[in-house]
Amino acid sequence: MAKVSAEQNADNLRQIVAAIETGDIPSLRAVLVGLHPADVAGIMESVPPEQREAVWAEVDPEIMGEILLEVADGVRDDLLRKMDGQAVVRAVHNLDTDDIADILPDLPDELVAEILFAMDRQDRERLDRVLSYAEDTAGGLMDVDTVTVRSSITIEVVLRYLRRRGELPENTNHLFVVNRNDQLIGTLLLRNLVSAETNRRVFEIMNKDPVKFTALTPDTKVAEAFERYNLISAPVVDDDGRLLGRITIDDVVDVIREQADHSVMARAGLSEEQDIFAPVARTARNRAVWLGVNLLTAIMASLVIGQFENTIGQLVALAVLMPIVASMGGNAGTQTLTIVIRGVAMGTITSANARQVLKKELLVGGLNGVIWAIVLALVTLFWFGDYFLGLIIAVAMVINLVVSALAGVVLPLALRKLGFDPALASGVALTTVTDVIGFLSFLGLAAIFLV
Amino acid sequence: MAKVSAEQNADNLRQIVAAIETGDIPSLRAVLVGLHPADVAGIMESVPPEQREAVWAEVDPEIMGEILLEVADGVRDDLLRKMDGQAVVRAVHNLDTDDIADILPDLPDELVAEILFAMDRQDRERLDRVLSYAEDTAGGLMDVDTVTVRSSITIEVVLRYLRRRGELPENTNHLFVVNRNDQLIGTLLLRNLVSAETNRRVFEIMNKDPVKFTALTPDTKVAEAFERYNLISAPVVDDDGRLLGRITIDDVVDVIREQADHSVMARAGLSEEQDIFAPVARTARNRAVWLGVNLLTAIMASLVIGQFENTIGQLVALAVLMPIVASMGGNAGTQTLTIVIRGVAMGTITSANARQVLKKELLVGGLNGVIWAIVLALVTLFWFGDYFLGLIIAVAMVINLVVSALAGVVLPLALRKLGFDPALASGVALTTVTDVIGFLSFLGLAAIFLV
Repeated sequence: MAKVSAEQNADNLRQIVAAIETGDIPSLRAVLVGLHPADVAGIMESVPPEQREAVWAEVDPEIMGEILLEVADGVRDDLLRKMDGQAVVRAVHNLDTDDIADILPDLPDELVAEILFAMDRQDRERLDRVLSYAEDTAGGLMDVDTVTVRSSITIEVVLRYLRRRGELPENTNHLFVVNRNDQLIGTLLLRNLVSAETNRRVFEIMNKDPVKFTALTPDTKVAEAFERYNLISAPVVDDDGRLLGRITIDDVVDVIREQADHSVMARAGLSEEQDIFAPVARTARNRAVWLGVNLLTAIMASLVIGQFENTIGQLVALAVLMPIVASMGGNAGTQTLTIVIRGVAMGTITSANARQVLKKELLVGGLNGVIWAIVLALVTLFWFGDYFLGLIIAVAMVINLVVSALAGVVLPLALRKLGFDPALASGVALTTVTDVIGFLSFLGLAAIFLV
Repeated sequence: MAKVSAEQNADNLRQIVAAIETGDIPSLRAVLVGLHPADVAGIMESVPPEQREAVWAEVDPEIMGEILLEVADGVRDDLLRKMDGQAVVRAVHNLDTDDIADILPDLPDELVAEILFAMDRQDRERLDRVLSYAEDTAGGLMDVDTVTVRSSITIEVVLRYLRRRGELPENTNHLFVVNRNDQLIGTLLLRNLVSAETNRRVFEIMNKDPVKFTALTPDTKVAEAFERYNLISAPVVDDDGRLLGRITIDDVVDVIREQADHSVMARAGLSEEQDIFAPVARTARNRAVWLGVNLLTAIMASLVIGQFENTIGQLVALAVLMPIVASMGGNAGTQTLTIVIRGVAMGTITSANARQVLKKELLVGGLNGVIWAIVLALVTLFWFGDYFLGLIIAVAMVINLVVSALAGVVLPLALRKLGFDPALASGVALTTVTDVIGFLSFLGLAAIFLV
């Protein structure tokens, strides 16, 4: 199966789009043949729905299941909507039980019944086990095809058993050692298995204290542990320590990627895994909520300005300069916010050191406030020739940058405590604060001292 | 080695801080003893420099090397500065060659010489091989401790060889099959090795077409391929196909994390891997550049407002409302920008489909522009009782949201083409455009039609 680079991907995409536009089906097929399912998935994500349909019609049905696994959720929904029921059943049937569990929740009930009906009993039971856990838990992430051995047997026996058993499940890098009650008592790395003397016993070379997860561990904690301890795979056990399955790093990488996507996307009020070519009306609706919230906060800031209509009427230079104070506060605050949100997510900023972080950020905000206040005062002096206006904008700047540091530390910690997603809500909350304080401090000082 | 959760981490941190503050060294030691190096690294990142020093003094020198590997770059620099030369040499000496290569570039030359002197020849040669490639390439990422076999031997012979050889390198999940010239001709998964009949030959069960990288492949491409093809490890070869080393997923996860960090941090003008407790002056200086750029762009927007001083003087309501138009443009544009930057990074948005993306984003921008223009017109009417002002702000809103969609698509693609980092530069460029166009369209229309 050919594996391709991003550049080749773009080339493939260009050829496919050209082939669709000219109705050149043989060329379309020629590009698709032999592409890895993950690369076809990339193409499905990169073309608008009409072209997506044309490509999908030429995809080898054998790899449709794998493509459905790889595409973004929005694109998968689109494809599933377009496929007839039989095609879905056939596509899904080729997949591993654990992968079927990923797709099943997106399907209509009658198709689910049909797919379950087509499976043998053992696979159906496995599927049930995975489906009984939420997608975002260790149980939902795990594969159930574990290979277990007993601790008292020799390496020789293990090797003979494995040869009789035949091919091991994908990404197997260790065997699980269980007792009579199916309780996990250790793991046996394949790399230790192959280098050990054959007359030694499993318990002599097994890892007796592997990192393990209970089925309800949130997937983010699983990802954290994999990253922290450089794990490749890890067992999942129930509350009594019985082995349920195993989690492999390739699934954890997807969790890490989703988390990272979430923190970027949420800050712009977007949900991840969207289809870049979702219908315009749906996309506009999804984004509208966020814009509505922002409109509200912008109106709040305008209400503050509205209190100073008279002041501005007397000195229009205030209207010219006021966005600068607000904007600098927003930018400085966003820097602090970004550091704090990341620190909280990584576990390096907790209630144990929040006060020290706050102290440092206030000092940084104050220092940068003073520096840029001086610059802005000089600019103002040069522009409007008004010493006192320069002094007032400088003071407003220092106030707003200190407040922005305070807001940047306190808001994400407080929002988190209140149960909100800091990545989603902190940004709007912060700019509201920095706009309001920016306008209020500058116009307020001007109202008191200038006009 | 105990592995701990984020909550336990916070608890440990609290105990450690308390122990330092009361000078209770035995308690400090009691918490530290038995902590995994990665967890101690987390603690080192979470405490300010003074406390960091106190903790470091109680850390077991045996695990200092591993901790240095795990901490953020800024914290590592801080620790290295505080250690005396002999301590550094001792800490580093315990590490694998490949890990030493990660730390060496941060050390002063005389220490590097001393560390090299303390190594045996084979290790020094290995180190040289890794150091000859840039950190952000496949060569810089790779481990050089590969285990190779010939294709014509039987599985029986392979197993006997491995047993004589002894323990395999960490994270080994396959052996490399090379020919007489050391050229890679396949990989042999351990899971296939242990389940194969012992009289079969390597070439019968090896993977003849593994994903492989040349030494100069950028690490981001490596990460992309690992993610796309769900790899656990992969060989690195030179231009003649000779095996140089192997890359394992645990190092790739770090690359993925760094990339994700970069895209979040760069958008606020921050560099990743910073020490949250770096000295105030240094942090302020690092952030000041970004604030300076933002001050410039804010002044540009103010210059636009300045052109309309007379208009505003005649109708102060314009000053009250103008930030709303600018702010909505900034928010809508940031949504488009976020989608496009992500799409470009993931390879789903390329020059092959940029026009289709632009078309869709313009439609979404226009639709949301119209919706929120109507809402804002009504708010304006209600607030200022001025139909015509409502109409003008509505038109300005539609204009700015369409322009923001255009800027959100075009800016990151153009900046990328010009060789800038879209994550770093697009945000400032975008808000400059949306501020300028927001003020210009609203105030300009008002100047023409209202006053």
